[in-house]
Amino acid sequence: MNTLQFKEAIAETIRAYNAKGWSPATSTNYSFKDEHDTIWVSRSGVDKANFQASDFITVDSNGTATGEFEGIQPSAETLIHCVLYELFPATKVILHSHGIYPVLLSTVCEHEVSFEGYEIQKGFAGQSTHEARVTLPIFDNDQDMARFKEVLIQHKSSLMNAAFIMRKHGVYAWGTSLFEAKRHLETVDYLCQCEWFVLNRPTPTQY
Amino acid sequence: MNTLQFKEAIAETIRAYNAKGWSPATSTNYSFKDEHDTIWVSRSGVDKANFQASDFITVDSNGTATGEFEGIQPSAETLIHCVLYELFPATKVILHSHGIYPVLLSTVCEHEVSFEGYEIQKGFAGQSTHEARVTLPIFDNDQDMARFKEVLIQHKSSLMNAAFIMRKHGVYAWGTSLFEAKRHLETVDYLCQCEWFVLNRPTPTQY
Amino acid sequence: MNTLQFKEAIAETIRAYNAKGWSPATSTNYSFKDEHDTIWVSRSGVDKANFQASDFITVDSNGTATGEFEGIQPSAETLIHCVLYELFPATKVILHSHGIYPVLLSTVCEHEVSFEGYEIQKGFAGQSTHEARVTLPIFDNDQDMARFKEVLIQHKSSLMNAAFIMRKHGVYAWGTSLFEAKRHLETVDYLCQCEWFVLNRPTPTQY
Amino acid sequence: MNTLQFKEAIAETIRAYNAKGWSPATSTNYSFKDEHDTIWVSRSGVDKANFQASDFITVDSNGTATGEFEGIQPSAETLIHCVLYELFPATKVILHSHGIYPVLLSTVCEHEVSFEGYEIQKGFAGQSTHEARVTLPIFDNDQDMARFKEVLIQHKSSLMNAAFIMRKHGVYAWGTSLFEAKRHLETVDYLCQCEWFVLNRPTPTQY
Repeated sequence: MNTLQFKEAIAETIRAYNAKGWSPATSTNYSFKDEHDTIWVSRSGVDKANFQASDFITVDSNGTATGEFEGIQPSAETLIHCVLYELFPATKVILHSHGIYPVLLSTVCEHEVSFEGYEIQKGFAGQSTHEARVTLPIFDNDQDMARFKEVLIQHKSSLMNAAFIMRKHGVYAWGTSLFEAKRHLETVDYLCQCEWFVLNRPTPTQY
Repeated sequence: MNTLQFKEAIAETIRAYNAKGWSPATSTNYSFKDEHDTIWVSRSGVDKANFQASDFITVDSNGTATGEFEGIQPSAETLIHCVLYELFPATKVILHSHGIYPVLLSTVCEHEVSFEGYEIQKGFAGQSTHEARVTLPIFDNDQDMARFKEVLIQHKSSLMNAAFIMRKHGVYAWGTSLFEAKRHLETVDYLCQCEWFVLNRPTPTQY
Repeated sequence: MNTLQFKEAIAETIRAYNAKGWSPATSTNYSFKDEHDTIWVSRSGVDKANFQASDFITVDSNGTATGEFEGIQPSAETLIHCVLYELFPATKVILHSHGIYPVLLSTVCEHEVSFEGYEIQKGFAGQSTHEARVTLPIFDNDQDMARFKEVLIQHKSSLMNAAFIMRKHGVYAWGTSLFEAKRHLETVDYLCQCEWFVLNRPTPTQY
Repeated sequence: MNTLQFKEAIAETIRAYNAKGWSPATSTNYSFKDEHDTIWVSRSGVDKANFQASDFITVDSNGTATGEFEGIQPSAETLIHCVLYELFPATKVILHSHGIYPVLLSTVCEHEVSFEGYEIQKGFAGQSTHEARVTLPIFDNDQDMARFKEVLIQHKSSLMNAAFIMRKHGVYAWGTSLFEAKRHLETVDYLCQCEWFVLNRPTPTQY
């Protein structure tokens, strides 16, 4: 895929996820790294229902807009994208969602949420059986992105499933392709939805 | 945007919100103020799944249909729109929703509902951090619009987040543009959905 | 509207309601009365996702297929449609839904379900204020349509809101036009959804 | 229907079910038997939102790719499809879903889930009244397909409703046509959704 095709494919994904309710009120942000390793991130303050290929801007590794986009103020969260590309160099696409289930789980789980026995756990790259226990870290939401960057660096080893939850905020998931990043994000959302309902059963689950 | 473009953009929003289930059974109403400060309000009794740009009528500041629309009886709630434009002169668009979560919350909260720690609180103009506490007023539903107008005037200071809930009825949200009004309404709906589930957990949330 | 336009408008409604999940597994049935008072009912066993204007057949007042459709076996529930047209001669359209909320309520309410204080109660023709109490009857599901016909005749006075619930089955709603019948059905579904959540709150609602 | 029409019809169903959330993260698989009794199964690792008629491959009765598709590794679950065609020779189409309600029920029910009194039970071929009790087996998820094949063979008599649940995995449903297979899968999903809510009521249901 060339850069324009990449932009169009991600823009289509962004609009589809908006239709699922994952990016209300202009929230969320998305990025990809092109064939020259340039980072393109979604422009801030765009209604994701109408997101277009032309709504991506280039940023440097500090999250500052570059080239023809110089002077544009990207979302503060751009720095999260930049750190993830630095920590996991094979990453090509980073997706973000405000879907409610990870958000709800983060109000009852402190540092992590675990899943066990679900077939769909195999949606995470490297997970080959439902019999494993998969854990995703939950980090406190933070306005201070320099500080949050340090949190990610310190917890790099807990990010092996290519996703984390920000408390009362949402999910970040990434992959070595758009295909893989989507698979990771959809896996997180589905597992969190199941687990929210399971945790809230009046009587405990047994199987 | 000229008036026709404005109408078409809001009509598209109305149909999209209908698809979310926010305006069943011909319910809800919408308005905007054009470049000449004329108020256009959605015609009463139209199925919002099929709402068209031509379904807006002009009203004066008392909610009476004017000009070519004289004699048409607008929705009783038109007066709510008129008062909001009077109280907040920068307002250009007012949206209404019967989405169930604000309605459900209004059966368990008396005078207000508060949100704390949610990233999406920043969807309200002027809220710059999730660390704040955001409060929306809940007013009793009232058939007497003159009386309800007085309630709004008296509680003007509680309307700084550009939205309120009518008990067992729905939400009104507004903004200085369609873009901002949508952001406000979607923010309210999302927060109410999260809070409804959080309030109903068998065991209390901790984080 | 001529008969073909009527068929097309209802077929469009049927497909839209299918998309909401109201007619899974080929379930539900629909009818209208044309300008010659002929009853047209939806053919049995059609996937409602693909329902077409040509999927209506004519029946007599006993629910037997007539004219070019003679010999086709209509749904057993056709007799419900016929009785409703007899009991309420102004009725032009009858809609049916298997939406889950009325079905769920019918597992906890015996003979009726009531709603109070909801704005959307005004969706029922003749209801002019949310301050009233609106009641819908719940009838046991019955395979014996002749017997069920008698139930409807005996309870005619409880059908003034143009709708009833069949236990663990679904809703019938009707009106003097497609527009009104839709408004009635959507009103029932919305109220049942709200009430299901309200009834299931761990702590009682207060307002 | 010729083979191409069959593929296109199932591909359309696959995309529609993906839109319902039944196949997140590239999950699920589908198959049909053509007029020459050749089994076509969905290619592994395709995003079901974009599934095309060309994404089916032929396999032999051991689930090994044949002909022009030789060498392609089909999903491990292909063997489930092959066994079902062997056990129930009239079967033409097999559908699979990861819809959450059967998955959730499988966390609280051990070996089976039963439904009673629901009209929609008649969606299963051979069920002619809501007054019956319908039972679907729940099998533990298993990575070992040869062993799982034996489980299916041993429990053939419990599969008379043409569907089963795999714990924390999903549903398989089948039929003698696409039409029937869809009806079976939608019936299972709807019943599981109702039953999940009914089982989780704080106070017991009575009717």
